[in-house]
Amino acid sequence: MVVVAESSRDPDLAPFVGPVHLGKAILVATGDRRPTLGYLTSMERGEAAVTGCTLFGPEQSGLTDLREKSGAEHRLWASLIEATLAFAGVSCSTVALAGRAPAGLVHAACSVLESKGWGFNDGSVVARTYRKLKGEDEIKQVRSTAAVVCSAFRRIAGLLAAASVRGDELWLEGERLKVARVRSEVAVLFAQAGLEQPMGNIFAVGAKAAIPHTQGESMDVLRPGKALVVDLFPRDTLFADCTRTFCVGELDRHLYAAHKHVYQALVHAQGKVQVGIRASRLQQAVCAEFEKAGYDTPQSRQDPRHGYVHNLGHGVGFELHEFPTFAETETEGGRLEAGDLFTIEPGLYEPSLRFGVRLEDLCYLSEDGLEILTDLPYDLDPNAWV
Amino acid sequence: MVVVAESSRDPDLAPFVGPVHLGKAILVATGDRRPTLGYLTSMERGEAAVTGCTLFGPEQSGLTDLREKSGAEHRLWASLIEATLAFAGVSCSTVALAGRAPAGLVHAACSVLESKGWGFNDGSVVARTYRKLKGEDEIKQVRSTAAVVCSAFRRIAGLLAAASVRGDELWLEGERLKVARVRSEVAVLFAQAGLEQPMGNIFAVGAKAAIPHTQGESMDVLRPGKALVVDLFPRDTLFADCTRTFCVGELDRHLYAAHKHVYQALVHAQGKVQVGIRASRLQQAVCAEFEKAGYDTPQSRQDPRHGYVHNLGHGVGFELHEFPTFAETETEGGRLEAGDLFTIEPGLYEPSLRFGVRLEDLCYLSEDGLEILTDLPYDLDPNAWV
Repeated sequence: MVVVAESSRDPDLAPFVGPVHLGKAILVATGDRRPTLGYLTSMERGEAAVTGCTLFGPEQSGLTDLREKSGAEHRLWASLIEATLAFAGVSCSTVALAGRAPAGLVHAACSVLESKGWGFNDGSVVARTYRKLKGEDEIKQVRSTAAVVCSAFRRIAGLLAAASVRGDELWLEGERLKVARVRSEVAVLFAQAGLEQPMGNIFAVGAKAAIPHTQGESMDVLRPGKALVVDLFPRDTLFADCTRTFCVGELDRHLYAAHKHVYQALVHAQGKVQVGIRASRLQQAVCAEFEKAGYDTPQSRQDPRHGYVHNLGHGVGFELHEFPTFAETETEGGRLEAGDLFTIEPGLYEPSLRFGVRLEDLCYLSEDGLEILTDLPYDLDPNAWV
Repeated sequence: MVVVAESSRDPDLAPFVGPVHLGKAILVATGDRRPTLGYLTSMERGEAAVTGCTLFGPEQSGLTDLREKSGAEHRLWASLIEATLAFAGVSCSTVALAGRAPAGLVHAACSVLESKGWGFNDGSVVARTYRKLKGEDEIKQVRSTAAVVCSAFRRIAGLLAAASVRGDELWLEGERLKVARVRSEVAVLFAQAGLEQPMGNIFAVGAKAAIPHTQGESMDVLRPGKALVVDLFPRDTLFADCTRTFCVGELDRHLYAAHKHVYQALVHAQGKVQVGIRASRLQQAVCAEFEKAGYDTPQSRQDPRHGYVHNLGHGVGFELHEFPTFAETETEGGRLEAGDLFTIEPGLYEPSLRFGVRLEDLCYLSEDGLEILTDLPYDLDPNAWV
């Protein structure tokens, strides 16, 4: 496999180089020896040295000469990819191509190499399969990130519990309580712990909570009786991911019922998790359960907008969405194994009633069974948290 | 141009969609009408709706059917790219390909389309040229991000000035003053302002400061007489970028001289900036100036490790490194124009003497002339800052 990446945060590159800071890089992994890391500026030699890879720096690749000879940038990249493969002992053949890189540049570079006899096929599945199962060090880091996420949720519950209702608004410390305030408290807490939120976060109130991926506006005021969906997914080297739904004040009966069904689905799904089961089985079981309760699901209706509208979960790792996949139908990377890190996150969404409910736990499956890394209450009412 | 992206943070996609949160997307920009945005899940319809693009959602593309028919993922992507181009009114032809996407997947998808008569060339330069000049709204955002960066540097100077020297260590509030403390204060300040550090930051002490891209270790203790290079490059929607070098206590004469030369080079380079000048001219002038002072430069030696070892600056925008380019030789995107946002950052590095010095300002060039967005002292001594 050859990985062409823009930075060491590339999820296909990160498992091989660890938490260093590198810019553009080419990595060759052959399975039978240490991976070879081609980096492009001697200014990064300090970072490259701690990766444990066999290094192929700009002096060894003759980068300055290659740059002069190549002309167009895609020809330079073709030369660099070929030189790195040759240095790693790979002779002209078909290799799996992975990494996130400028699409046009890499396509043009690989087309040049294909005219010279090389072949490239899609290495996405190889790369995702390689990093599907997590090692003890990785899980240790995720446990600690998940603990910070739990602190953040407790902080949010504390703010909501401390707020008072004035008309149809929540107030705290003499001000309307807005998403901005809650978001900022969380951001500071994450920053203190050295966590980033490169994919953002979700604080969706009322109607916005009824569309699962709407992130919410910082100026939105929190309101009694309205659901607030909070979905946090910060990253250290690997991501953690957790969702809770809050509601202050009197509950609409539809919201109450939806929360109850989502909670039951979560508990049932967690109970079914075991080494060897297909994730699609869990998704099918949750669909059946929601259908029995009268909700639409992806099993009963194509691309539903109401009811249960997404997959039950997803693997988590260097990317927020990894293997295993939890679709209704069997897919690549869909079997649960010891070493898998994934979310279980049933949800119910009612755009016409202007609410959504989602509960998401981060789960680690080992030979010892299922470990929930986000051990938190599930209550809508923040007063039940404190 | 067609952009294939993993998220709305993709620097080739961001200028078209603004600060929304989208996952995988395909955008077609033809220049003569509103861009077309193909997104892949109806869960993102709320975010997609505010981009101002013509939308091509999963219902219009018939995503579920395409997925079933396609089999392998790269065939699905080939179908999606073709469908989005057709919807945008682009008939079978050669198009510029941009965006960051899984390299193997996009290469395989484009190869399928090429067998059907389409052609794809590297759209990197088109995309970078499109976003080279910044609009007033963009500069307004960057000014505000740069102001937060300035507060961060003043906070750092304050911490260093308040520290006391004990032997060869700096102490503050009863503890050794470590990179971790300074980093955490900066992270919290950025988080409060809603800024992220997706590319990290640099706090490099002593010998680590002598290699420009070494990020520094959180456990490193700050020491009197040792240079601390601080390079901060947080992002709101666009990045800001600024570097200062600090030294507490008595100065080595080499460090003193290097700082003086770097400061002079910065002032001279800023004085030469004007609309229409080639950035390579500025780099050449700075090389000549450093050579006269006895330092190696990229003009006198290939890939130098001592002295002046990098380019004078780089454009800044949705990516940290953008057009204009400041290499010694003329390159694409190397002419300074009104609307350019870029850094000027001379530095001198002495690995054998275990120090480095860099001073970096973020600059905006308009018809009215040069505006320095990082108006801060340049002093090594933090006491001169407070």
